[in-house]
Amino acid sequence: MAKQIYKQVFSSFIFFTVLLYQSNAVTALRKSFDLAKPCKRFVLHLHDVTYNGDNAANATSAAIVNPIGGLGDFNFGKFVITDSPVTMDENHLSEPVARVQGLWFVHGKKKFDTWFAWSLVFNSTQHKGTLNMMGENQIMESTRDVTVVGGTGDFIMTRGIATLTSEAVEGNTYFRVKMDIKLYECYY
Amino acid sequence: MAKQIYKQVFSSFIFFTVLLYQSNAVTALRKSFDLAKPCKRFVLHLHDVTYNGDNAANATSAAIVNPIGGLGDFNFGKFVITDSPVTMDENHLSEPVARVQGLWFVHGKKKFDTWFAWSLVFNSTQHKGTLNMMGENQIMESTRDVTVVGGTGDFIMTRGIATLTSEAVEGNTYFRVKMDIKLYECYY
Amino acid sequence: MAKQIYKQVFSSFIFFTVLLYQSNAVTALRKSFDLAKPCKRFVLHLHDVTYNGDNAANATSAAIVNPIGGLGDFNFGKFVITDSPVTMDENHLSEPVARVQGLWFVHGKKKFDTWFAWSLVFNSTQHKGTLNMMGENQIMESTRDVTVVGGTGDFIMTRGIATLTSEAVEGNTYFRVKMDIKLYECYY
Repeated sequence: MAKQIYKQVFSSFIFFTVLLYQSNAVTALRKSFDLAKPCKRFVLHLHDVTYNGDNAANATSAAIVNPIGGLGDFNFGKFVITDSPVTMDENHLSEPVARVQGLWFVHGKKKFDTWFAWSLVFNSTQHKGTLNMMGENQIMESTRDVTVVGGTGDFIMTRGIATLTSEAVEGNTYFRVKMDIKLYECYY
Repeated sequence: MAKQIYKQVFSSFIFFTVLLYQSNAVTALRKSFDLAKPCKRFVLHLHDVTYNGDNAANATSAAIVNPIGGLGDFNFGKFVITDSPVTMDENHLSEPVARVQGLWFVHGKKKFDTWFAWSLVFNSTQHKGTLNMMGENQIMESTRDVTVVGGTGDFIMTRGIATLTSEAVEGNTYFRVKMDIKLYECYY
Repeated sequence: MAKQIYKQVFSSFIFFTVLLYQSNAVTALRKSFDLAKPCKRFVLHLHDVTYNGDNAANATSAAIVNPIGGLGDFNFGKFVITDSPVTMDENHLSEPVARVQGLWFVHGKKKFDTWFAWSLVFNSTQHKGTLNMMGENQIMESTRDVTVVGGTGDFIMTRGIATLTSEAVEGNTYFRVKMDIKLYECYY
């Protein structure tokens, strides 16, 4: 009887070993995770004051190339460099915990549409390091997902997405964007 | 005898357990996969109609900065914003399944050479979401590989490469590029 | 007694199997690795000769947009395209093993600060392929980490960071940057 039990144990052992080994090899190709359970999550608010020639003291971004004209009515070709503060709450006077530093531009011929690439640079007691984000940013949609492609410091090797929401737009000189950052690959 | 068998089972169990645990830990550092077996693959065709001042109705891309001149004869410094349709077949009149939205520019002093960063934005019955691509795009080579650095929607957390092939170039106003996209990290 | 031993073996087997399976599933969410042990590491040196109108033969980069003026004294808005050689040692006359091809720009209002995105394109007997890098590059810091977001060829699917150090700055026309590239996800 011991032999019979041994056979059962052994065969199930081999079965599970092979199963585990395969599932491990397959992780390089196909994985899954729970979208509702990021390993890290932040909700932050970006405050942009666009340079208009008269607000140099407060400006945090500026167009370096103006719309080319002739290609629709939605500022096609406007190219902006930004270095704007990011806070924990919606108040632009709150102490910044990070800055957004990078570029965005306007590419829609028939609607207002943008693309961006920037670093979210943390410099707070809680976090040091950067998250690099990029992607299509269809700002006429109420929310849109963009990609977090990697990081440094506290965020080394992380990846995920950010859901962006335009919270406020005041004329041509101020806008606030909520960034709900969800990381699905974390280290440490 | 049962005891002896038990010893064998137990020692091989410990051996495989340790082996598996190690190989699992090592996946954070070194992995492998079969280049010929991406977990997702698409072949798509990008159609670019370059704005020349007279074709606003059809144009899908435009230079926002002209070549600087003085630095070779290959348009060094030309900087283009694109928002161009992508189809399943080579026919530019086919229903687009996606758009390419982003930037590319010319950086070669002694040959025609480009670099790009863009989002492939899917909007079809089959796929919603984006793939973000970037990299050196040596367009004088018949094919060249570029990097897929991440995605959103159906392509959240994916990575891989795309092999680009220039399929057609008609003067300065139309070109078509085949994009053979191979993802090696998939979720769902 | 054999039965008792069997029970022990079997229960510990199940315990370890479950443990392994869980740890495997969790790798999709939270991993760790030894920062001191990249799976690949290179130390390379980038040589940039900035175009000044008179040095076309030697120039390897050039501003395509000049500073906008009015927004601080640190060249806000200067936008540069680069195609510069990379060597194994500090000598700019050494045979290049790679080129850096991409963009960088200046975004600081109160200090000199840059952001970049480029490909490190290897073309040596040792390596063919590219590494794509991007991120905030605070060049007034003695060293700063940036992100390696992916690659192609020998570096397909790799990720990691690069620690950049400004090694030499000669006026406005030459600088050398040490790139200590540490990859933490390797294939092959």
